[in-house]
Amino acid sequence: MKKELLEVFDNQFPDRNYTIEIVNPEFTSVCPKTGLPDFGTITIRYIPDKSCVELKSLKYYYLEFRNAGIFYENITNTILDHMIEVLEPRELTVKTEWKARGGITETVTASYSSQQQ
Amino acid sequence: MKKELLEVFDNQFPDRNYTIEIVNPEFTSVCPKTGLPDFGTITIRYIPDKSCVELKSLKYYYLEFRNAGIFYENITNTILDHMIEVLEPRELTVKTEWKARGGITETVTASYSSQQQ
Amino acid sequence: MKKELLEVFDNQFPDRNYTIEIVNPEFTSVCPKTGLPDFGTITIRYIPDKSCVELKSLKYYYLEFRNAGIFYENITNTILDHMIEVLEPRELTVKTEWKARGGITETVTASYSSQQQ
Amino acid sequence: MKKELLEVFDNQFPDRNYTIEIVNPEFTSVCPKTGLPDFGTITIRYIPDKSCVELKSLKYYYLEFRNAGIFYENITNTILDHMIEVLEPRELTVKTEWKARGGITETVTASYSSQQQ
Amino acid sequence: MKKELLEVFDNQFPDRNYTIEIVNPEFTSVCPKTGLPDFGTITIRYIPDKSCVELKSLKYYYLEFRNAGIFYENITNTILDHMIEVLEPRELTVKTEWKARGGITETVTASYSSQQQ
Amino acid sequence: MKKELLEVFDNQFPDRNYTIEIVNPEFTSVCPKTGLPDFGTITIRYIPDKSCVELKSLKYYYLEFRNAGIFYENITNTILDHMIEVLEPRELTVKTEWKARGGITETVTASYSSQQQ
Amino acid sequence: MKKELLEVFDNQFPDRNYTIEIVNPEFTSVCPKTGLPDFGTITIRYIPDKSCVELKSLKYYYLEFRNAGIFYENITNTILDHMIEVLEPRELTVKTEWKARGGITETVTASYSSQQQ
Amino acid sequence: MKKELLEVFDNQFPDRNYTIEIVNPEFTSVCPKTGLPDFGTITIRYIPDKSCVELKSLKYYYLEFRNAGIFYENITNTILDHMIEVLEPRELTVKTEWKARGGITETVTASYSSQQQ
Amino acid sequence: MKKELLEVFDNQFPDRNYTIEIVNPEFTSVCPKTGLPDFGTITIRYIPDKSCVELKSLKYYYLEFRNAGIFYENITNTILDHMIEVLEPRELTVKTEWKARGGITETVTASYSSQQQ
Amino acid sequence: MKKELLEVFDNQFPDRNYTIEIVNPEFTSVCPKTGLPDFGTITIRYIPDKSCVELKSLKYYYLEFRNAGIFYENITNTILDHMIEVLEPRELTVKTEWKARGGITETVTASYSSQQQ
Repeated sequence: MKKELLEVFDNQFPDRNYTIEIVNPEFTSVCPKTGLPDFGTITIRYIPDKSCVELKSLKYYYLEFRNAGIFYENITNTILDHMIEVLEPRELTVKTEWKARGGITETVTASYSSQQQ
Repeated sequence: MKKELLEVFDNQFPDRNYTIEIVNPEFTSVCPKTGLPDFGTITIRYIPDKSCVELKSLKYYYLEFRNAGIFYENITNTILDHMIEVLEPRELTVKTEWKARGGITETVTASYSSQQQ
Repeated sequence: MKKELLEVFDNQFPDRNYTIEIVNPEFTSVCPKTGLPDFGTITIRYIPDKSCVELKSLKYYYLEFRNAGIFYENITNTILDHMIEVLEPRELTVKTEWKARGGITETVTASYSSQQQ
Repeated sequence: MKKELLEVFDNQFPDRNYTIEIVNPEFTSVCPKTGLPDFGTITIRYIPDKSCVELKSLKYYYLEFRNAGIFYENITNTILDHMIEVLEPRELTVKTEWKARGGITETVTASYSSQQQ
Repeated sequence: MKKELLEVFDNQFPDRNYTIEIVNPEFTSVCPKTGLPDFGTITIRYIPDKSCVELKSLKYYYLEFRNAGIFYENITNTILDHMIEVLEPRELTVKTEWKARGGITETVTASYSSQQQ
Repeated sequence: MKKELLEVFDNQFPDRNYTIEIVNPEFTSVCPKTGLPDFGTITIRYIPDKSCVELKSLKYYYLEFRNAGIFYENITNTILDHMIEVLEPRELTVKTEWKARGGITETVTASYSSQQQ
Repeated sequence: MKKELLEVFDNQFPDRNYTIEIVNPEFTSVCPKTGLPDFGTITIRYIPDKSCVELKSLKYYYLEFRNAGIFYENITNTILDHMIEVLEPRELTVKTEWKARGGITETVTASYSSQQQ
Repeated sequence: MKKELLEVFDNQFPDRNYTIEIVNPEFTSVCPKTGLPDFGTITIRYIPDKSCVELKSLKYYYLEFRNAGIFYENITNTILDHMIEVLEPRELTVKTEWKARGGITETVTASYSSQQQ
Repeated sequence: MKKELLEVFDNQFPDRNYTIEIVNPEFTSVCPKTGLPDFGTITIRYIPDKSCVELKSLKYYYLEFRNAGIFYENITNTILDHMIEVLEPRELTVKTEWKARGGITETVTASYSSQQQ
Repeated sequence: MKKELLEVFDNQFPDRNYTIEIVNPEFTSVCPKTGLPDFGTITIRYIPDKSCVELKSLKYYYLEFRNAGIFYENITNTILDHMIEVLEPRELTVKTEWKARGGITETVTASYSSQQQ
């Protein structure tokens, strides 16, 4: 998961709090236990400070997970950590919603606020 | 209802409050009055503290209810009690939504917060 | 509308506030003006104190309205009154949603809280 | 089930085959076994010959079933018989779709064609 | 209902059978019995021969029904007749779907084919 | 827009705050600019004080707008004003949702509270 | 799978071909490989000859599968065989639609016609 | 509308009739009467003979319509003509579904079969 | 993006806070990177002070973006800025929801309140 | 794409034509042009002769495509060819539905019948 793949561009409206939500319903990784693929939707919602994430680089960043064996909770928190480092946003939430396995679905949601630091 | 079936793994992000929601639309038990099966969807939503519940063990735990005669309210509160004991979560909600009987549907929702203890 | 038809059973988890929602989409009564039937969905949501309403008795209670001429607002408030008397709940809401007449639909919602008494 | 309640008016376009479909999602009758109400949607589709059924009279005709104990299959075929007698249509189909009982739904469909007589 | 309002333009692809479907979900007329408005969706589907109907003129044609008292069956067959006269199409179907009155909806469908004349 | 058409009946449960919502998806008026009809859904939600609005009279009141040329904002605020005068409610909201014109839809929402006077 | 559980009643309209469709979305059995439960919807559609299946007995018949280990294809064809034996229908179709396992869903459909024998 | 923009690649399975459907819900052109933009969904369905259309070139071909003033019927038949010339398919259908103007939507469908030539 | 295209009319109910929401699902602009068109839905929601925006002028204002190369974030904030200048509203929110590119969708939401100035 | 991964089991009802449909909405492969992943739903529908495909082996067979660069049309026809070889079915259809790229979606459908050989 190379966070270096993430590119940013300058937020041109830093004086205003506004929200950017990016939804990727085509995320896939590998279950570390079974070696079988997992499929999910990743949603990022953030209030930018100085930087916004570039969409194409985000796509390539997500591709790094395609053949990686990693649990739902780790994916969610790892993406959150990388985004905080790269974007230094005012607020940021990562939600991952996973397709059913054995009839059971899981959703993981983690948030960050620069105010709480 | 052997809560011993529930397995946990260590929460690797204990410094952060985040939410895990697990939905099982394939739950079935038996009505203690009629002996006929009930069908429902069980949703668990919690903020982990030290432990997270392992999904496969949760599936086997739910299977224990398959041939047990037990009322909606008891199922909901029993699952809540077991989860509190096994996970010691920061927050936890159990919601059970039942298919119609005689044209009437019931939903039961019970919550726990470690703050209120 | 004999509220005596309503049977209760003991709430086995009185130390915990939890919510029970019961939806009946097959309710019918008679319009007192036209003598024509009305159709609606009745939703009851409550936090039990000492008692829970028994579902089958609730169904028979609702059947009492089948051939009774009574207005939407009266049905809603009458069910609320009966439930308060029989259940003495901590919180209770009754919502009645009516099928269109002359292209117009009506929904009536009434609530009770034991805290406000 | 008094078919005399059904009123007709003259088909003003008898030279043309055209179709009239009438859907009533607010039908209710009584189960002869349990005495409990059944709820369903009744659909009539026909090609008129000399007569069309008047909608308001159809509504009153349906009301006759409200407190009658009668099985799904009988309702369907009885309505078909009455409509054939009263309308003498070119083609006629009656479909009755019933709300779930014990988790199981039933749909009954019966048709008539004047060509096949 | 002045069919003169309907304007046509030349079909520029007369060598090919193709289909044009025009849906107007904002049709309203008046019930001749009650004087109250009816609301419906009018769908026209046709294979043009030499002419196609101009959309704006069709809209004005439909407006003529706004305050006219006329039954569902008559509206359907009248529009069919007008379209046949004005368009002389190869095939034409008019379907009118009406909003519920007294909980009951009606749909009327009439067709024309130049082959059958 | 004769508000005199609106009839009321006594609220029989004045000791309790409860909500009545009335939705009319079959509203039509005329655009003052183009003379063409507008179509919309009018929703009224209120907490009655001494009076409730009678549904049939409300329908006739709405019919007054059928051939009147009046803007979206004016309709919304005019209905709000009339309802306040006639009902003297504790709370009242009027929402009007309009079908697309030129691909663009508009919704107008205005509220009143007797507390804020 | 005791087909003896299936009860029938006399078809009272044997002179007419008509269709009965019965849908049970609350079917469950056990996978013979994994021992884990399967969930599915069973649809039966038939034209009765002398007999119709009684709904409550059908429900008890389905319950026999609850703890039986049996494959999708076998369930479908076994129900078809039993129904043919018990009902001797004119036409009969059994469709079983199964909830996803490993992200993959299966539907099996088998039909019988007395004409083809 | 330069059909030269359309690129093809060799059909590698010419011995088999199979179907390719391509849906573009992001088509826009200009109304020649008003100069205002039209929005629609273009669906192409064909059985290839020797050639298949390359998706990216199709996208650029569609872009040529973005600022062109052209009627619905012409767009449909022009795309059909271009596709026939470039692909020489065994069967081909073009369907264009347009967003509402003045509350009215139109769909145009034109087909070609090499058998009928 | 000439904000001069935006026309306003006097708010005739300035004594009351009410909300106007305008949704345009037919917005298109050009991606400055690829030169390919973007498609989105623009929603404006505001509480007017002295002025309301005229819908037809808003449509022409949006058309100015049709062939302009501009990023999602810039479009959102530019529309917000122009609306604030022209309307001087009490509250205003602009939300832009974009169709998927590379399987990824983005939504941008920016708000203004005259209270916070 | 090793078809050897596909395992079969004996069709236990070879005297009857019946249909098996298997839907996998979690298919992914790689675009040979861009190297970026494609996502799609693969549907197989067949009438078995002597053999049925085993679901788990089908899942592993599909996994072989995960990192393979292959076009939509080739995937569809290759799966069809493999299934014909391994199952020797009476009838077989493969449908592949692909998520949008550049706003455009494609569906490919290929069929086989043992009768037509």
